[in-house]
Amino acid sequence: MSTEEHALELIERVRSKPPRFEDAQITMAHGAGGKASRALVEGLLAPALGVQELDDAASVGDLALTTDSFVVQPIRFPGGSIGELAVNGTVNDLAVSGARPLALTLSLVLEEGLGSNELRAEVEAIAAAAAVAGVSVVAGDTKVVERGSCDAMYITTTGLGRFDPRANLSPRSLEPGDRILVSGSLGDHGTAVMLARGEFELAAPVESDTQSLWPAVDALLDAAGSSLRAMRDATRGGVATVLNELARTSSVAIVVREAQVPVRPAVVGACEILGIDPMYVANEGKLVAFVAPEAAAGALAALQRVPGCEAAAEIGEVKTDPPGMVLVETAFGGRRVMDMLVGDPLPRIC
Amino acid sequence: MSTEEHALELIERVRSKPPRFEDAQITMAHGAGGKASRALVEGLLAPALGVQELDDAASVGDLALTTDSFVVQPIRFPGGSIGELAVNGTVNDLAVSGARPLALTLSLVLEEGLGSNELRAEVEAIAAAAAVAGVSVVAGDTKVVERGSCDAMYITTTGLGRFDPRANLSPRSLEPGDRILVSGSLGDHGTAVMLARGEFELAAPVESDTQSLWPAVDALLDAAGSSLRAMRDATRGGVATVLNELARTSSVAIVVREAQVPVRPAVVGACEILGIDPMYVANEGKLVAFVAPEAAAGALAALQRVPGCEAAAEIGEVKTDPPGMVLVETAFGGRRVMDMLVGDPLPRIC
Repeated sequence: MSTEEHALELIERVRSKPPRFEDAQITMAHGAGGKASRALVEGLLAPALGVQELDDAASVGDLALTTDSFVVQPIRFPGGSIGELAVNGTVNDLAVSGARPLALTLSLVLEEGLGSNELRAEVEAIAAAAAVAGVSVVAGDTKVVERGSCDAMYITTTGLGRFDPRANLSPRSLEPGDRILVSGSLGDHGTAVMLARGEFELAAPVESDTQSLWPAVDALLDAAGSSLRAMRDATRGGVATVLNELARTSSVAIVVREAQVPVRPAVVGACEILGIDPMYVANEGKLVAFVAPEAAAGALAALQRVPGCEAAAEIGEVKTDPPGMVLVETAFGGRRVMDMLVGDPLPRIC
Repeated sequence: MSTEEHALELIERVRSKPPRFEDAQITMAHGAGGKASRALVEGLLAPALGVQELDDAASVGDLALTTDSFVVQPIRFPGGSIGELAVNGTVNDLAVSGARPLALTLSLVLEEGLGSNELRAEVEAIAAAAAVAGVSVVAGDTKVVERGSCDAMYITTTGLGRFDPRANLSPRSLEPGDRILVSGSLGDHGTAVMLARGEFELAAPVESDTQSLWPAVDALLDAAGSSLRAMRDATRGGVATVLNELARTSSVAIVVREAQVPVRPAVVGACEILGIDPMYVANEGKLVAFVAPEAAAGALAALQRVPGCEAAAEIGEVKTDPPGMVLVETAFGGRRVMDMLVGDPLPRIC
């Protein structure tokens, strides 16, 4: 056994244990979508609720149900705002589950003193995004908390969708040889929000990619049908976290070819300065799709014809060993482990 | 025209106008469930979303969908806690719409530094309340915000239910002669939370009434069937606000006989000291039902047999004039207008 193989085996042994939640307090990392989030969900929430897992989107008969809260700061940023995000984020959780979005509910927690014009702008952003995504906002609630008890507004949307009969998706269905597609350039959203905070003396022309992914999913289902194994939208924790989750769930290895990952030059530059790998940065309009090898080329071509997905690319392949792990082949021919996100380098980006 | 009739006509003329939203900022009153909330929803949210009204529970085919955020302070209080409230509040919105609760989604906004034990206690409260209400928690989300950016935790639940074929409910269906039932004593929840804050040097043995109302609804549907015109759970703004909304929607008058309204002595006492009318105080496990006269006695008897509804009572009747108004007949034979809640005397009670 080589040193590398030995290291991989050690990592694998640690990772196959069920996660425990032993922290005394909640930290920002528990909201980051990475390791700590997983420990919170699988080690505390799911056991306390008496469920096996708490999925992003659950099935109730032929219907899909999903919910998300949005606490992004600032509430407006280049390319989008919290209202638009609250629609697309929830619509996308339905879409990547193979469910056509039908209806949304909308719950607002507003800060006392919030300007009515700011609120109106977000509600209009919600209406516009819902119209583009083809969903209706059917029910709602509003609460107000004292000044200082929230940051302008927090929005929770819940989405109801109907599973598409073309879809036969499962995070357990990945097989060696499957190809990995992404629907466009990575890291735009998280980078745009981070730059919008103005904490770094850095200006770069980066806009959030927030958009509905149903058109992309629709195209993939048409092109690949049941050869489409699984999809995920790569939000908190980025593509790296999505790949780790699926490698683990399907007990397969995943190899990513770094040179094929589409990232805009401005995002590469900003991430380099911030010391962040774009693979861990949140996207709000990008999916990762796993497709059987014979259907991959057709699926990629179909994806690239969808507006907003022109930069879609095949970035890697599913392998057998080491199961549960994600490896990156660098442009220089090296290989390294790409683990789940640890800590929270980009807090409150959604 | 008597002075009283003249005054009523004036009030009616003002109230028949569509509400406008002209406030420059959000205030606590916009979250109180009364007049300001109505102006926010009907004057800003609904028009901006391009919908006629934003219902508590909406129908999607034969399914009902409803959402609510919970920001109650403190998060634990005599008789319940935010987690239990988050389940029952949403389950009850379904129930009074005539929909049997099936599934819930759960979204948490957690404050950095929140004790894990506090979180675990609330998640266990959610699990316990869901088990009692017969619903599953099927999907969830967790966000974390920095210390000070929320108060311990805010919870948003969304409920999916199926409309019961026995139900033929509409807030527009009230007819003169209909009887008004309440499912038990009023004002317990809001009073309990207010006292739990310790802002008043007042100790009274008052507990929240938080409970699932589906058993009460089930009993009413069995006893009254399509003679059951409409139901509402009397949360923010209390029974007074519910009666005003329905009087307006059905263009009928409502007369409440004050002497018949069940209120616990401890609540009467506390509300007197706080200067609040229990009819405006939030309940979290009480409904108001409108029943055709011939079915009223049977419906009331059925309700009183439901555990937790022993104190159910008939408190008044639907009349023709003045349309859109709620009048109270006092124990001394007087009559006064009971308007919608103005301002927010009891902030953040749910």
